[in-house]
Amino acid sequence: MSFSVEFIAVGTELLLGQIVNTNASWIGSRLADAGLAHYRQAVVGDNLDRVVEAIRAAGARADVVILSGGLGPTRDDLTREAMAVAASVELQRDEDYAVRLRAYWEQRGREMPESNLKQADQPAGAIPLENPKGTAPGLRLDMGDTVLFAVPGVPAELHPMFDNYVMPALRDLAGGGDAVMVSRLIRTWGESESMVGEILDDLFDSSDNPTLAFLASAGEIKVRLTARATTAAAAEDLIAPIEAEVRNRLGSRVFGSDGDTIEEVIYALLRVRGWSLGTAESATGGMIAARLTAVPGCSDTFRGSIVAYQEDIKVGMLGVAAATIADHGVVSEPVALEMAAGAASALGVDVAVAITGSAGPDPQDKPIGTMVLAVRTPEGSHVRTLHLPGDRERVRTYTTTSALHHLRLALQGAL
Amino acid sequence: MSFSVEFIAVGTELLLGQIVNTNASWIGSRLADAGLAHYRQAVVGDNLDRVVEAIRAAGARADVVILSGGLGPTRDDLTREAMAVAASVELQRDEDYAVRLRAYWEQRGREMPESNLKQADQPAGAIPLENPKGTAPGLRLDMGDTVLFAVPGVPAELHPMFDNYVMPALRDLAGGGDAVMVSRLIRTWGESESMVGEILDDLFDSSDNPTLAFLASAGEIKVRLTARATTAAAAEDLIAPIEAEVRNRLGSRVFGSDGDTIEEVIYALLRVRGWSLGTAESATGGMIAARLTAVPGCSDTFRGSIVAYQEDIKVGMLGVAAATIADHGVVSEPVALEMAAGAASALGVDVAVAITGSAGPDPQDKPIGTMVLAVRTPEGSHVRTLHLPGDRERVRTYTTTSALHHLRLALQGAL
Repeated sequence: MSFSVEFIAVGTELLLGQIVNTNASWIGSRLADAGLAHYRQAVVGDNLDRVVEAIRAAGARADVVILSGGLGPTRDDLTREAMAVAASVELQRDEDYAVRLRAYWEQRGREMPESNLKQADQPAGAIPLENPKGTAPGLRLDMGDTVLFAVPGVPAELHPMFDNYVMPALRDLAGGGDAVMVSRLIRTWGESESMVGEILDDLFDSSDNPTLAFLASAGEIKVRLTARATTAAAAEDLIAPIEAEVRNRLGSRVFGSDGDTIEEVIYALLRVRGWSLGTAESATGGMIAARLTAVPGCSDTFRGSIVAYQEDIKVGMLGVAAATIADHGVVSEPVALEMAAGAASALGVDVAVAITGSAGPDPQDKPIGTMVLAVRTPEGSHVRTLHLPGDRERVRTYTTTSALHHLRLALQGAL
Repeated sequence: MSFSVEFIAVGTELLLGQIVNTNASWIGSRLADAGLAHYRQAVVGDNLDRVVEAIRAAGARADVVILSGGLGPTRDDLTREAMAVAASVELQRDEDYAVRLRAYWEQRGREMPESNLKQADQPAGAIPLENPKGTAPGLRLDMGDTVLFAVPGVPAELHPMFDNYVMPALRDLAGGGDAVMVSRLIRTWGESESMVGEILDDLFDSSDNPTLAFLASAGEIKVRLTARATTAAAAEDLIAPIEAEVRNRLGSRVFGSDGDTIEEVIYALLRVRGWSLGTAESATGGMIAARLTAVPGCSDTFRGSIVAYQEDIKVGMLGVAAATIADHGVVSEPVALEMAAGAASALGVDVAVAITGSAGPDPQDKPIGTMVLAVRTPEGSHVRTLHLPGDRERVRTYTTTSALHHLRLALQGAL
């Protein structure tokens, strides 16, 4: 087996779902960036036997086991003790560290609770890893042929310790690194996962470096290319022609790569033109505005939104003609277009997105799942009627994402 | 060992850190709500041997193993096959399901890629779990004394399948035939977990059937009462007096029980008075309106919202006086009160919630994390300034929840 790393997050709060395990994804992406194989992750609660068992099981498979959490001063912080038990060594007081701990508290003008000295107890033979952001040091400890690392669970402490101490050690342990792994995500929207799979089927078969994989989430299909080579540049060279072929075949379905978001792509397109943005929403009830305002720095471009949930607000605030509603129904393309025009005028924006629809459970004048979206730019207006399956929340969420992608396509001149 | 559940998330994208494992925290919190022991979670990539090994290792310890992900139609979807191998049974084509799959695609006027038929292959003896939100069915399969469940990795498909099929089965399995377990969640907002703990401290010590536990997530503290008895009615009888005591001590901090949501509680309070509702949002950008319109049937009460992200929209559409902004700054209690009054007038609503704040990363006229919320009802107006830690998304999310709870308290006359 080639060199591999496993990750164990320690903490009952993770099992109870009180916090999300972002350390696992953060460390996973760091390991992937470095081309290090990482096949398994585990979560265990604050229980000595189970932490010990998890360390031993991971150590039997992997060359390195990284633990996060359980390094604090309270009774349920058991990671140090579990490492000692797993490696069959004693816990010893590190007197130098005890002195530094006391100094840390004195500097802050507070008396140290004696229980905090627990943080200076370390498995015999362990090397402490400095923690500039907190009091709990990390640890490195040999357990047979496996190397254990322990880092704090608090992300602000974990991140610098991992980058400064753990990552350089991992590169050394991996033995000069005769393989680097590089991944590229190509993000698409507008086709099913199986259709994207069929479009790229022969590449999936013929290319084993890079390998291809498909990831689906929230209507988006991501194509992942993963290459291994002796250097990152060589891996990029392997990826480049396949990426070009994938992009060529998928065309305007591709909206970005790697960490790009559709919101950021939209703002980049708007800023090039100097256009401002607003929304007029009925069935989505503010969801499009909420997503667009989640982006830091959006206030140079996003101006506002009118959530016109009731018909008389569509007429009164967005200037939709009562006759248009009477003639076509409130869920109709003419109404969506008038909503977009009304939003552009009322909010003073260059670009407006408007939604009217029947999200259920009670039908409007059109069947449930009928959602009409309009995009108005200074260059023209586009309108589209969608017929969506699923319940209210799914229809609203899909419509929101769909509206953002239609906006993107309109700004790219691809509608 | 008592009854326990383990969770395995399947997906290379999780190991590579491309997505965060929110399914783990969601399922963890569902299990905690139900009082089911859950000691370990694992993540494995899309590799048959490793998925099989993870299923067997978890099955050797736990009574139930829940898997998520790997149920799609593409080649890297291996969960069905891994379950068959782990349980030593064959994969068989479910012809009924194959017919339904074809019908699903036909209804949508699209041709089904043949590869999708893979989703109709199931381990022999498996019971399919219906997936109303997608095409991949879930599975239930016996592996010796352990029961395996597989659910989709897409949260919108996982959530209803888990609640509709997996959770009822878990309650049956946990009861073991001769005991029924009933849990009651009492949902509170506005106090820390430690304060709720102090208020209920003696009950925690004195009551062992039902037992009490505290669960914290997203600012909400849940008190869980779990009783065991020979019948559900007998368990309910054990819970009733303790629940009454808990509710009495916690007073208006309690907003609901079990699956109640703050949104539903608000609509129930509004309908009693016959009052309509709208919002005026700056820093939350439509998030409050989006949450309020997520509730089916809200259109009898919710009328609309004005997202006034820019100052001139606050003045032009909400009628905030320029002098008020000049005197107090745009993030101020007088501005929030004028926004609420303006929304009530512009939207024609009885009750309005307004938000102005500084969510970061760039400060407005007040420090980042300063969020002002106003609630206006026909009986009076209330305004509150919050000083919140954390980044933009955390500040916006907490403010949204906080606004809903202040609205609830105002409607209950408890502000």
